[in-house]
Amino acid sequence: MDKQLPSRSENFSAWYNELIKRVGLAETSAVRGCMTIRPYGYAIWEKIQAALDSAIKDTGHENAYFPLLIPKSYFCKEAAHVEGFAKECAVITHYRLKTEEDNAIIVDPEAKLQEELILRPTSETIIWNSYRNWIQSYRDLPLLINQWSNIVRWEMRTRLFLRTAEILWQEGHTAHATQAEAEEETRKMLDLYADFGRDYLAIPFLKGRKTEYEKFSGAEETYTIEALMQDGKALQAGTSHFLGQRFAKAFDVKFTNAAGQSEYVWGTSWGVTTRFIGALIMTHSDDKGLVLPPRLAPIQVVIIPIYKTPANKTALHQQAQRLQEQLRENAITVKLDDREDHKPGWKFAEYELKGIPLRLVIGEEELANQSVTLSRRDTGERLTIPMDKAVEKITTLLADIQSNLYERAIQFREAHTCEVDDYDSFKAAIAKKAGFVLAHWDGSTETEQKIKAETQATIRCIPLDDNLSTPGKCIYTGNPSARRVVFAQAY
Amino acid sequence: MDKQLPSRSENFSAWYNELIKRVGLAETSAVRGCMTIRPYGYAIWEKIQAALDSAIKDTGHENAYFPLLIPKSYFCKEAAHVEGFAKECAVITHYRLKTEEDNAIIVDPEAKLQEELILRPTSETIIWNSYRNWIQSYRDLPLLINQWSNIVRWEMRTRLFLRTAEILWQEGHTAHATQAEAEEETRKMLDLYADFGRDYLAIPFLKGRKTEYEKFSGAEETYTIEALMQDGKALQAGTSHFLGQRFAKAFDVKFTNAAGQSEYVWGTSWGVTTRFIGALIMTHSDDKGLVLPPRLAPIQVVIIPIYKTPANKTALHQQAQRLQEQLRENAITVKLDDREDHKPGWKFAEYELKGIPLRLVIGEEELANQSVTLSRRDTGERLTIPMDKAVEKITTLLADIQSNLYERAIQFREAHTCEVDDYDSFKAAIAKKAGFVLAHWDGSTETEQKIKAETQATIRCIPLDDNLSTPGKCIYTGNPSARRVVFAQAY
Repeated sequence: MDKQLPSRSENFSAWYNELIKRVGLAETSAVRGCMTIRPYGYAIWEKIQAALDSAIKDTGHENAYFPLLIPKSYFCKEAAHVEGFAKECAVITHYRLKTEEDNAIIVDPEAKLQEELILRPTSETIIWNSYRNWIQSYRDLPLLINQWSNIVRWEMRTRLFLRTAEILWQEGHTAHATQAEAEEETRKMLDLYADFGRDYLAIPFLKGRKTEYEKFSGAEETYTIEALMQDGKALQAGTSHFLGQRFAKAFDVKFTNAAGQSEYVWGTSWGVTTRFIGALIMTHSDDKGLVLPPRLAPIQVVIIPIYKTPANKTALHQQAQRLQEQLRENAITVKLDDREDHKPGWKFAEYELKGIPLRLVIGEEELANQSVTLSRRDTGERLTIPMDKAVEKITTLLADIQSNLYERAIQFREAHTCEVDDYDSFKAAIAKKAGFVLAHWDGSTETEQKIKAETQATIRCIPLDDNLSTPGKCIYTGNPSARRVVFAQAY
Repeated sequence: MDKQLPSRSENFSAWYNELIKRVGLAETSAVRGCMTIRPYGYAIWEKIQAALDSAIKDTGHENAYFPLLIPKSYFCKEAAHVEGFAKECAVITHYRLKTEEDNAIIVDPEAKLQEELILRPTSETIIWNSYRNWIQSYRDLPLLINQWSNIVRWEMRTRLFLRTAEILWQEGHTAHATQAEAEEETRKMLDLYADFGRDYLAIPFLKGRKTEYEKFSGAEETYTIEALMQDGKALQAGTSHFLGQRFAKAFDVKFTNAAGQSEYVWGTSWGVTTRFIGALIMTHSDDKGLVLPPRLAPIQVVIIPIYKTPANKTALHQQAQRLQEQLRENAITVKLDDREDHKPGWKFAEYELKGIPLRLVIGEEELANQSVTLSRRDTGERLTIPMDKAVEKITTLLADIQSNLYERAIQFREAHTCEVDDYDSFKAAIAKKAGFVLAHWDGSTETEQKIKAETQATIRCIPLDDNLSTPGKCIYTGNPSARRVVFAQAY
């Protein structure tokens, strides 16, 4: 094994980067801001995709696929949308290379596109352009479509999983006959994300509404799920937008209602990205490496047989294989590591680094006693149990680890959430990265921007939680405030 | 229902386009050459993906994800590769839009990239650039990676599913310590594709080697699976490339062998695309619409209850629901269509159009007799069976339909394969779209190109089938030929 990881307390950012590298989750590529997702990282993404895709389909949505490329004129049809994304658009201008006389290969100036194409930073425009033809009558509604795709946003400061130029994500785009139905869909998908966070990522997400200043370019309302990382910074982990009739108007998408009248349809869009993996890492992992919730771990149990005397090797090996088969029959993903070119200590550290939830050791003592020794990655707890109870106990332990990680994250969030009532206390809390800081705000964008400029704290959301809806006075202006909002430094 | 589809015999191409539109599989988009895959088409692609992904993983490959964008300089490192793809590259030159004083939105000339980026037409270059860091020792080999992604090739003449500017596909990229091992991998993945074709697509694929002229730009050898469409034209449905050490040398990817010496690694790559859906359509479908092999059908059985007297409605409905549940418990995907705003005749035509393998009708007669009436989409055969045998019979029938489609395709191919020994017969056969035409060829690219120019027939492959390896004389030059090769007009 290489040297220790940097510790979280000393340098959270170095710890994060080094962990991703050592575990083999992802790496930077030859293209600025674009990451390569390595097999172990991609296996986690596949687990996230499978579970989320199933939840999205269970709520009546179907998958489809729309083009990567968007004509510039389409992209510009919704004014707020293009204003929000114009600064980070990758633009295709040519469609051919050619070889010069000196053998240099250049972009062929003859092959200039008549109209430039934008790499989708999100797909509202190209999708609503299709919806115009897909929707005629109220019978065609609701239209509930999801897409798994890659998008490109030319971000200047990038970071593995958190902010990359190319992003893998899912984006839902729905159309409805009424405002109420579209608003319900927006909230329903926010809830779906939050439930997924609780049940799979083991991350408690705070649900709320974005301020006017922070909302999605082209939305009437943006809802968000916000998580708190171990360094006290917030992470926006997913958003759900109520689009009103903006894209319907921009792309002339109308339907005939039951009374025979023509109306614009109402829209929503919602998405989550590979950023979920960044959230996983920064919520659960420790100085020994990755900690994965069992439901998203590509390998849930690693079995390590430890030989001392050659006489027992065959028996140990057979026992390990038997256990592997039993676990597989119970839908537990398991890896048997019986390589002899690595010592047990090396393997222990390796699988701790990789975040395997449970380690199962059988050595000569275990064989003699017909037992196995289990070690939990989350707590480090070690316990010896009878061999014939192994499958049952492992099943229980995996569920325990899953819920323990969630409980721990809830406790961390509670310990790192505070209410402040004056600006000095606010600044102090933000400066020491106290986590979620609940404070009164007068509702103006001007105040929001001043606070951001002075403290780097942003309003993460106006929480949906009703406990916070008691009035007070803005910490910055002293103006009346209807309720507390959640501030934090954020990724 | 709309009017009839065009018939295959009258206008195969119009039939194909209209079928895709009516069934709702895909449509052209606002971007030249890029298609939108609609939910029903995408559901078929998801079925293909799931089965193929599982087969690729079962043979030891892992999924990963590499960037969409490739710096021009990387793209140019392998000479034959860039020469082959230069003419169809989409090029990104800028990374920002801006608003002019007159509110026009233009590409910001200040935001020009220092080095242009290519949208991947295939990922060898960006991937081998990573492999340089991933591979040090023989212990790191073989490296067996697959990627599901979108690629862009700026094709001038496009056609839904068959040739599009943006393509969804999987691409495998492997690295090996020896030539023999890489060659074995190349053939193994070709076999995997052919087996998938037989077992899922119900399409017999002819396996063979591409000629020097037709092989992949950057490969030492290209192997192909070729299918024969109902109009007598061939379709290249997938390829597997032995790359030799070309990309290893271009990207300096070396490993230390067991003896401690440094060597270049050996490579392969292989891919199949959404073209599989085009192959499915043109192999099995008929003038009534799509015909889907049950293993890839998003809906395998549709249940249509037919009410006449209101008194029986509830009983029929309950019986239909019971059947639906029983089929679902047996992992059969089923849709119950009890809508009352469409007549049974309309529904029959609709589900024939959509290619649902089995239709199950229960009307009053069936209810009285405790039976159901089943209709096969592939043969039109109708049979009435006891209700309590329905699940069992449906299971058998779905397997029957799957194998019948394959057998029918084999028979079609046999009936449309001929051997010719002189150029006049060859021209006649090609002109009447006789299918696969087996003929002797002298092995020269010059002859191959002349035949192509004169007849539009291309050498689809040099088949791996040993029956064809008896010598003869080239139909064009009379020069000696070691074996027959397969000619056809192709998509």
